[in-house]
Amino acid sequence: MLQISQRGQEMPASPIRKLVPYAEAAKKKGIQIYHLNIGQPDIETPKSCLDAVKHSNFKVLEYSHSAGNESYRRKLVEYYERNNIHIHYNDIIVTTGGSEAILFGCMACLDAGDEIIIPEPFYANYNGFAIQADVKVVPIKSSIETGFALPPIEEFEKAITPHTKAIVVCNPNNPTGYLYSEAEMQTLKEIVIKHDLFLFADEAYREFCYEGKHISAMHLKGAEQNVILMDTISKRYSACGGRIGAFITKNKEVLNAAMKFAQARLSPPSFAQILGEAAVDLPDNYFDKTKAEYKLRRDILVNRLNKMPDVFCPNPGGAFYAMAKLPIDDCDIFCQWLLESFSHNGATVMLAPATGFYSTPGLGKDEVRLAYVLNAEDIDNAMDCLEEALQQYPGRTNKTNAPAHIQNA
Amino acid sequence: MLQISQRGQEMPASPIRKLVPYAEAAKKKGIQIYHLNIGQPDIETPKSCLDAVKHSNFKVLEYSHSAGNESYRRKLVEYYERNNIHIHYNDIIVTTGGSEAILFGCMACLDAGDEIIIPEPFYANYNGFAIQADVKVVPIKSSIETGFALPPIEEFEKAITPHTKAIVVCNPNNPTGYLYSEAEMQTLKEIVIKHDLFLFADEAYREFCYEGKHISAMHLKGAEQNVILMDTISKRYSACGGRIGAFITKNKEVLNAAMKFAQARLSPPSFAQILGEAAVDLPDNYFDKTKAEYKLRRDILVNRLNKMPDVFCPNPGGAFYAMAKLPIDDCDIFCQWLLESFSHNGATVMLAPATGFYSTPGLGKDEVRLAYVLNAEDIDNAMDCLEEALQQYPGRTNKTNAPAHIQNA
Repeated sequence: MLQISQRGQEMPASPIRKLVPYAEAAKKKGIQIYHLNIGQPDIETPKSCLDAVKHSNFKVLEYSHSAGNESYRRKLVEYYERNNIHIHYNDIIVTTGGSEAILFGCMACLDAGDEIIIPEPFYANYNGFAIQADVKVVPIKSSIETGFALPPIEEFEKAITPHTKAIVVCNPNNPTGYLYSEAEMQTLKEIVIKHDLFLFADEAYREFCYEGKHISAMHLKGAEQNVILMDTISKRYSACGGRIGAFITKNKEVLNAAMKFAQARLSPPSFAQILGEAAVDLPDNYFDKTKAEYKLRRDILVNRLNKMPDVFCPNPGGAFYAMAKLPIDDCDIFCQWLLESFSHNGATVMLAPATGFYSTPGLGKDEVRLAYVLNAEDIDNAMDCLEEALQQYPGRTNKTNAPAHIQNA
Repeated sequence: MLQISQRGQEMPASPIRKLVPYAEAAKKKGIQIYHLNIGQPDIETPKSCLDAVKHSNFKVLEYSHSAGNESYRRKLVEYYERNNIHIHYNDIIVTTGGSEAILFGCMACLDAGDEIIIPEPFYANYNGFAIQADVKVVPIKSSIETGFALPPIEEFEKAITPHTKAIVVCNPNNPTGYLYSEAEMQTLKEIVIKHDLFLFADEAYREFCYEGKHISAMHLKGAEQNVILMDTISKRYSACGGRIGAFITKNKEVLNAAMKFAQARLSPPSFAQILGEAAVDLPDNYFDKTKAEYKLRRDILVNRLNKMPDVFCPNPGGAFYAMAKLPIDDCDIFCQWLLESFSHNGATVMLAPATGFYSTPGLGKDEVRLAYVLNAEDIDNAMDCLEEALQQYPGRTNKTNAPAHIQNA
């Protein structure tokens, strides 16, 4: 009998998108939905970037270089230089989104049966790329009680086996919004050097840091051969649909291997490379405005959440996500209930159940991820909905879940 | 020690691109190069398609649906209908080029250790996707003497093992230009049904058929559950840089599995989906002109080749490639020599060594692939170069390699 592959069966459906049918049904009933469930920024894509594409002048829309247009890669060097990341344009392979950069990393560095360590909760799609590469994800738990700080070094060392090949870190983090400190990045550096591991660094949200400074994995002196930066312009410039990212490493052997995978898929998309190149010329203050807007939203969101009885939301230092612990029995049921059975003033809120971001079964059952990709007023309205929903939800737990120091705060 | 993956080591460098440094050196010496080495069409991308992108009106360049914009998928249904391929828009996942459609097919249908049968010579990048999926390519030889017709059914049956999961067919073929007959397609249908195999059908060159009619794998009644169409707009509309393709199947289980891989990479590129959608509205005679131009070039190329002493080039029925058997010792050495040590009136020709398209070591050593993606005059000039080169080449074999019926023709 014709059968799909084992990996096709094991591949998880997107935890964020599986609620979509319920949202569609709610919309059909005339209910307004505040979408805090996906990382699709609402901030406008810079006009100068979109205009650059409109002014493109192709006669023949040719394949670009498999590593991306040289002009774009040279321009990216300027961008990274401003972030104190010193690279050569030949250290860069332009990819089809950050997704492809992650896939190239898995393919170039990992074989079937290898293990990668990822602090959980983590970006759910890492699972998908691991399954494509037949690689085992070994989670180590970061906890909402500590605001999702890096687990202690002993936890990493307990998880390392002869099959461990890489540690994956997303900084600032999706889904937690956690911004790793310099000390934590140094810890990661020590581990990868001591144990000869690759460090896959997903820095999609580099610019969005609200407390403290972003330390890139590329800043870790002495770990240049270990570090692979997996980057994307999607969030940075609200250009998710362009599908442009970058795979960057100073490890030539890794880069050459990744380049063979890049050649097999021929080239990254041509139009959005033009957009990406124009984005490097945005004025220096471009991120100030965007960042101020996200910070304002975060402050509203986190304040509102922590004022709700038995709700705890650690203040995220970066990205545009927050994780909240709610007085609920099961976040998957709760998020579905919000869409199926609840509305407040004709509206409801769509959230991402945290279980999809944990690899260990059972973890995150009373947590949700909120993406603050709506304007301040909508976030406030969404919080009205959530507050009311937590009153009405039949699966509300009576026991308070917030850690002691928060209850006393 | 930090080590790249086994698959990163095994991954072949692109056989087409590995000569690029020699070409660059030749250009620096002022030598003009006729590029017959890659399938990058020179035909202009239709202006209406490029204009559609220029007139796009994004405020936020959002992720599209993971299966591609619904409007584009609905439009594609019209396109396929015109080709007598009857599908629903939910049978389609828009992909990032045909490359991603091939990758999704491997991921959704194949596991590590599975085998896929491909008539060789074949599109070299199939190897790359097989390595990514840890799948074994089992070649069965098609021969230049028969113009690369489908090997007899017994050859397939000899190659089938309990691990065989799919047959891959590219029609019209890259690199051979061979157009499979209705009888051959029926043979493939019988094999895949009898042995419960998937049929991966790469039909990138569907419109470019010069003798006979294109029979799509989607036309094979009774094999609907076996067939996966892997398509692309790259060659069809000279839009290689757009990176838009399609994964199409009536097998819902396969489609649902592929959809999970599609969700993991979020979405296909937004700009070029607009281009693809506009392309469906091109006038009915659009392909007539393009096809007439390619046919003219093919006729010149094949005629010139077969007039050269000891050269044999079967007349390809489709695509824009031809394979030629040359009186040479080693095509890799010859193609490099053309760039390094030869010029004729200040010019030379760049060809693709056929060895890169064969999986069986030793095959194709006296063959080259020629892509007729230059205008008629340039092709004629390129043939002047090649004719002269074959006179001068130190590794020329004296023994005639052409099959008897050609020598006598």
